[in-house]
Formats: sequence, C-alpha cells, structure tokens
Amino acid sequence: MSSFSNALYVVSLLFNLFFFFNFFLVRHHGMLTWTRKSAEEAEEVASIYCSGHGKAYLDGGLVSQGGKHVCECSLCYGGPDCSEILPSCPANADGGDPLYLEPYWMQHEASSAVTISGWHRMSYSFPESAFLSAELTKQILKLHTSVGNAITEGKFIVFGVGSTQLLHASLYALSDDDRLLKPVNVVARAPYYPMYQAHASMFKSRNFEWQGDASLWKNNISNLNSTKSFIEIVTSPNNPDSNLREPVLQGSNVKIMYDHAYYWPHYSAIPAPVNEELMIFTLSKIMGHAGSRFGWALIKDAMVYERMTTYLKLNTLGVSHETQVRALELLKVVLEDEGKALFEFGHKAIADRWEKLNKIISQSKRFSLQKFSPQYCTYLQDVHRPSPAYAWLKCEMEEYQECHKVLEAAGIIGRPGGFFGVEDSYVRLTLLRSDDDFNLLLQRLENLVSKELIDII
Amino acid sequence: MSSFSNALYVVSLLFNLFFFFNFFLVRHHGMLTWTRKSAEEAEEVASIYCSGHGKAYLDGGLVSQGGKHVCECSLCYGGPDCSEILPSCPANADGGDPLYLEPYWMQHEASSAVTISGWHRMSYSFPESAFLSAELTKQILKLHTSVGNAITEGKFIVFGVGSTQLLHASLYALSDDDRLLKPVNVVARAPYYPMYQAHASMFKSRNFEWQGDASLWKNNISNLNSTKSFIEIVTSPNNPDSNLREPVLQGSNVKIMYDHAYYWPHYSAIPAPVNEELMIFTLSKIMGHAGSRFGWALIKDAMVYERMTTYLKLNTLGVSHETQVRALELLKVVLEDEGKALFEFGHKAIADRWEKLNKIISQSKRFSLQKFSPQYCTYLQDVHRPSPAYAWLKCEMEEYQECHKVLEAAGIIGRPGGFFGVEDSYVRLTLLRSDDDFNLLLQRLENLVSKELIDII
Repeated sequence: MSSFSNALYVVSLLFNLFFFFNFFLVRHHGMLTWTRKSAEEAEEVASIYCSGHGKAYLDGGLVSQGGKHVCECSLCYGGPDCSEILPSCPANADGGDPLYLEPYWMQHEASSAVTISGWHRMSYSFPESAFLSAELTKQILKLHTSVGNAITEGKFIVFGVGSTQLLHASLYALSDDDRLLKPVNVVARAPYYPMYQAHASMFKSRNFEWQGDASLWKNNISNLNSTKSFIEIVTSPNNPDSNLREPVLQGSNVKIMYDHAYYWPHYSAIPAPVNEELMIFTLSKIMGHAGSRFGWALIKDAMVYERMTTYLKLNTLGVSHETQVRALELLKVVLEDEGKALFEFGHKAIADRWEKLNKIISQSKRFSLQKFSPQYCTYLQDVHRPSPAYAWLKCEMEEYQECHKVLEAAGIIGRPGGFFGVEDSYVRLTLLRSDDDFNLLLQRLENLVSKELIDII
Repeated sequence: MSSFSNALYVVSLLFNLFFFFNFFLVRHHGMLTWTRKSAEEAEEVASIYCSGHGKAYLDGGLVSQGGKHVCECSLCYGGPDCSEILPSCPANADGGDPLYLEPYWMQHEASSAVTISGWHRMSYSFPESAFLSAELTKQILKLHTSVGNAITEGKFIVFGVGSTQLLHASLYALSDDDRLLKPVNVVARAPYYPMYQAHASMFKSRNFEWQGDASLWKNNISNLNSTKSFIEIVTSPNNPDSNLREPVLQGSNVKIMYDHAYYWPHYSAIPAPVNEELMIFTLSKIMGHAGSRFGWALIKDAMVYERMTTYLKLNTLGVSHETQVRALELLKVVLEDEGKALFEFGHKAIADRWEKLNKIISQSKRFSLQKFSPQYCTYLQDVHRPSPAYAWLKCEMEEYQECHKVLEAAGIIGRPGGFFGVEDSYVRLTLLRSDDDFNLLLQRLENLVSKELIDII
C-alpha cells in the first residue's frame, strides 16, 4: 500500500469523523419538526427583494396561483420590485403610522420573530386572569420601571385593542357612575386629537357628550361645579403639538383621563414618572406595531378598574392572544438592555428628522414650527434634543388661512388644524412614517421654501 | 493492501458520499437563519410534558428565573405535570370555550404553525383596504362556498374583534339611521344569548335600548309599526337550545341581525345557504380559536356596511394583524380538503358527546333534554346526527325550580335559564369544552341520575 493511498485513507476517515459529528451532534441539536414548514415559509417570503422600497408579507397577495408573494411598495414606489418612482406622487405626512421603527426590528430580526402553534391558547381566557397574559403584564410594568415614565405601584392594569378601545372604555368607566351629573361633559384643550370628539359623540350616550375645548370652560368652572360634571382628556405630550400638558379644569366634578401615548423617550424628555388616576399607553407608539392593536391602562381606583374591565369584556372579550404572545416576545427583546437600543434608535431618528425639518422651515418667513424649551430627560440622562412625533406647522401669512391647501399645491398631504379644534392656518405633519415618505416630504418642503426665497429676491 | 483494508476504504468513501450529500444538499436546503431561535423556543415549550391534562405555552409562567415553562393544567388537575386529580373539583359545563377542537390542531401541528417576523405589518392598514387582509377575505369567502352555508355574492364583508364587537357594530349601524323611530327597541326571542341584553343596555344610547323577548311584541307588531322600530337579533342555530330559527317580527320598521356563530356542520345540519341582510360569524366556533378574537359580518346594504366600518374604525381601528395572518394560515389548512377533516372531526366529537349525554339523561324522569328532528345536511351529505353546541337541560320536577342548584349540589356548574330570559328550571350545559371537562360532567351526571334510580327503587 503506497503512502499516498494511506494518506487518502486517513483523510477519508477524518472526513467521516467530521461529518459524523456534524450529522449527529450539530444537526440533531438544531433539528426542528413541526415548526420547520412555517419557519421556511416566513424566510422565503422575507427574502423576496423589493428594492428597499417595499416588503413582501406572509399574508400578502401572490404573483400568480402558487407563485411568489408580491412586493407591497412604499406609497410613491411601484413596479414588481418597487424600484420605480411614481411621478407626481404626493408626500404623505398624514396619519400616525410609526413605520420609522421598522428598521429597528429588521436589525433585531432573529430575536424578535415568534412562532405560534395551531393549538396556542385557544381558550377565551388565561389561567391567572380572564383576559391578560400575566407574563406580558410583568414585562409592561418592567418597561415603565426601566424608563421611569410612570409609577405602576398600587395600580390596576387592563389591556385594550389599541389605546383607541381604552379611550372608549374610559368614557364608559368615568361616566357610568352614580355620583356624577349626567350627561358628563367630555372636553379636551385645543388643539386636541380628533378621535376624542368622535368617540364621545358616536354612541349618543345619555351618560356623556362631547363639549369641545376645555379652555372655554376654564373661567366659569367654579360656578359650574354644582350643576355640571366633566371628563377632561389630557394628552401629554400632546397630539398634535407634542407639548407636555397639565389639566385645564379642576374641581370635585372633574375627572381626568391621561393619554400618555407619546410619553416615551423617543418623543419627549421624561422629566419625572407620572402617577395619575387613569393613564393610557399604546404599543404602537413605543415599538411601532400599530397593526397589532394593543394598549394598556394603569388605573388607581378599584371601581374605575371594574367598570373598564366590564366594558372590555362586553366590547371584545379581551385582546387577541396572538397579539399578546407577540407583544411579550417583542418586549423581551426591548428589555434585554432596559430599552436603551430601542429608545436611542427612536429618539435619534425623530430628533434628526426634526432638525432637518427645522432647518428648512427656519429659512421661511411664511411657515413656522412649534418651539421647545430645553428639558432634562432622566432616562436618556441628557438635555433632550427635541423629537416631537408631529410638526405643528403654521402658515404665517394672512392669505394662507387654509394652510393644508398651500401644502397640497406643493404636493404635501398634512392634516388641517380644523380637525384638532383650531384654525386651518395650522397643519399637522407626521415625523413617524417611513424614510421614503419623510425624505419626499423634506424634498417637497425644500422646493416650497426655496420658491419663496426666490419670490423674495 | 488486504482486501479487508480495501473494503474499509470503500465503506469510508461511501459514508463520505452519504454525509456529503446530506450536509450540502439536505441540510443546506432547510437551513434557517432568523426564524431558527423562535422555532426552537416554540418546540422546546411544546415538548414539556403535562400528562395530557395540561399544556405549557410560550407566554406562560416559568418554573423559576430562566427555567422551563410551567404546565397549565385542566381545571380539575394539578401538580407540576398536571398528573394529580383535584378531589371534589366541580365539573365545569359553563361558558362556550371550544377546546374540543384542540386535538384537531395538535394533529395538524406541522401545517398550522405560523412564524411572524418582528417587522410584520407594523402599519395600521393593509394596502388593499384599511383593515382587512385581502387574502384572508378570499379564504373566508372560499370557506362559505365550500360549506354552502351562506351566499357571499353581492355582500360586503367587515372583520371584527370577535363576533362580540360585530354585535355592537350592528346595533350602531342599524340604529344610527334617520328613517327609524328612536330609540330602536332591541329584542330577541327567549331563550336568548345574554350578551345581547348587556350590549344593548351598556351604552345608555339614545338610539337603541333593550326590550327583552321578541315573542312578547309579536302580537301587536302591526299596531306598533307606525310608532316603534325594532332590531330583532335572530340566533340560528340558537344559543342555548341549538334550534334553527326564523325571525318572530316582521314589518317595515323591523331590521334583523342574524348571529350565525353556530351555523356550521359541527353543530347543525346545513339545509341550505343563508342569504340575509346582515349575518355574523366567528372563528372561535368554527376552528376553536376563541382567544384569537376574530369574527366577520356579511352585509347586503351599502349604508349599513359604511356605518359598521365607521364603528369598527372608531372602536378599535380594525383587527390585530397577528390574528389576521394566523387566521389565514389556519384557514388554508382547513381548506386543503374544503373543510372535510375539520368539520367531520368536529361533528363526530359533538355528536358522540350528545349521544353519551342523552343516554344518561334518558334514564332519568327528573331531567330532560331538547329534541331534534332529523334534517339533511347538504355539506356532510347525510341526515345530520344531532350535535348541538349546548345541552338545554330541564329539571322536570316542581321542587327543582332552580335547576342549577340541583346540579351544583351534584358537583356540576351550568348556566341558569334566567340568564337566557327564561325560568331557572332550565340550565345550559356546554358540549364544547375539553375531554377532561366533558368526561367529568358525564361522570357527575351519571352519579346524579343513578342516585335518582336508587331513590325510585
């Protein structure tokens, strides 16, 4: 036997050894059974190339029967792989879709996926509590403690199908009460989030009705206290102008509901934890998962908690179990470093956008933006670089009383001030959408302002 | 070189060849990247042994910090692996939890799992329609066509957070209407599902109010037609008694809302497809996924559709995207054979249970059950073997006017007739719970009836 044959023999044996270990140890360790098909399907769909201007989704349409999934393109992109820019497509700065956080989840792809079995939690209820995952509750309380934005001790918690449902539940809970004079007047200081008015009006309830701007009731509240009762909705930071807020009204017949959707480090300094009677939060503005429809409320008073629970039970019998298990997995990712990576990513994204926007608008005499005074953020441990969720743009010229029309003519869609209970010389522009949408907004605003500069020259 | 060495060498080469193909082809083909961690986690949790009397869930508690997930046991089982029977634990036959379908999904584990990425559909809306997955809509329509239980052509569709939310939305949509006299009287023929009363009362709406049993309005409806307007809720098959139903009221001021939660082959013969103005369905009773909170409505009238959409938008901004993608994957599994496997499994399970229950109760003179007349099922293509979702038990003896108390004393929890707008000599017992719960119910009923037989002797 030649030494060459011998060497071949040894090499072959060594390969045997390598493959053997690989086959029985490495592979067996990671052997998947019933989850494999779903995992492969998810990866296949995710691997579809959409030019960075779109995505294919597991539940999206198919190119053809049995074919690949289609790319769903950003608003101003088209074509099979979203590579074509659609000409004269308006820059959409409406709505509150928080897609600026999508890249964060792309970066944390491996830790944030969740695989749900066909038999996962089929029952209506959880063992510990009818409609709440105890583990999810724990993670939510941990999030508040890590961020230091709310005192959770001594509070009840309920989950809602988005904070939207919790706003309804709060109206029900704060008005279905023997002590109050009926109907309770529901108010919010202008500019206010338009949904409040729609909520308070739609039921045509005998218990509560919408009464507009809280400021209008401020001066004669002491006279009114014996004949009228109020629910004041305080949004802090406020939607649309992103300022931290306090209630306008006070008195024995005033109850306050706090909407703290934006009281998180991406959007606001966190000067101190809030500790109010009824506080509402939403996953969509924290993590960007608007489509999950998940929010929660922290509640001091046991009776209010009971009534909110009744409402949530009768309205939807709780919150989707798929949503709850996914929210849990996502929150676990966020809490690995006490939220640092998420909040720094989110804050930087919005603060950078705000700076760019400000730079453009500051060149204009016709438009102005809201101002922020410096404030220390206890979470980011720094003076907060402003990062409002929305720009509250004002058209300063008298002939621009319908500011959204000026923008519209320049190819920009914003939400008119009238929606928020103020003049249409204001327009709300979102800073939360995708890079594609925001970059187009900047480009259009730049054109608009540079035209103005040319006009002046 | 000996022939033995030669043989060894060849064997080694063959092994290499095998391993080589395995390594580079088989393994590489199924190589997973970002989904692997979630798939492994799901399989690990699913592999926890709970004695067949419980389950560990991905979002369940942990035995200790960083430890395994705990088993969540069936009601009357305990211990770390659910192997201990809890003595004197009552047989729970209350509620409508459809856990009898869990074994079906265990059997279809590999096809029914779903893996959701961290960046899956973060937006509020879908591209085709604000809140509805177009693919899911297609599957739902296909399901109705396959089963032949409803005409979907010419209908609008909306999704709700369970049929519960759709019942609310319907009250809103059918009453918020200029043509009707206000408040609209909401009625349902007794015995009726108690949720209807709670829904119609809770909002204290000026538009509608609960007016109880539809039968009480039947005789003078023609006189009333000019002064009062009605919404009649028709549940068919009915909850609690599982009979197919028609409206009691008719006239120009009567609008009908059909709750068809149970109009599926597991619970009822499907004599013909229904084709009404407003029909509500729910995933929980079809597939068993009550915790998903997913239902839909088919609607003929465009205005009613618009108003329902408005309600759903203002109430929750649509339905969880996690729920929608999972419902889609589950429906795809069901529709692989046009629902045959699921509906045959479901029908057999309930029909068998009903037979066992009947056999016990038929020996008694003190208790009786509802009767069914034979009816041909166009889907199962056979005379339907009765399979009601609920037993509507009657205590026949005068001294048993509070029938639930008689059962309670025998260790059985049912829902008293009073909840359904009739006498407490009736009790509703569910046939939908897990095998553990149902077997205990049979055992307790057997004891109760055999005691009666001894008493008679």
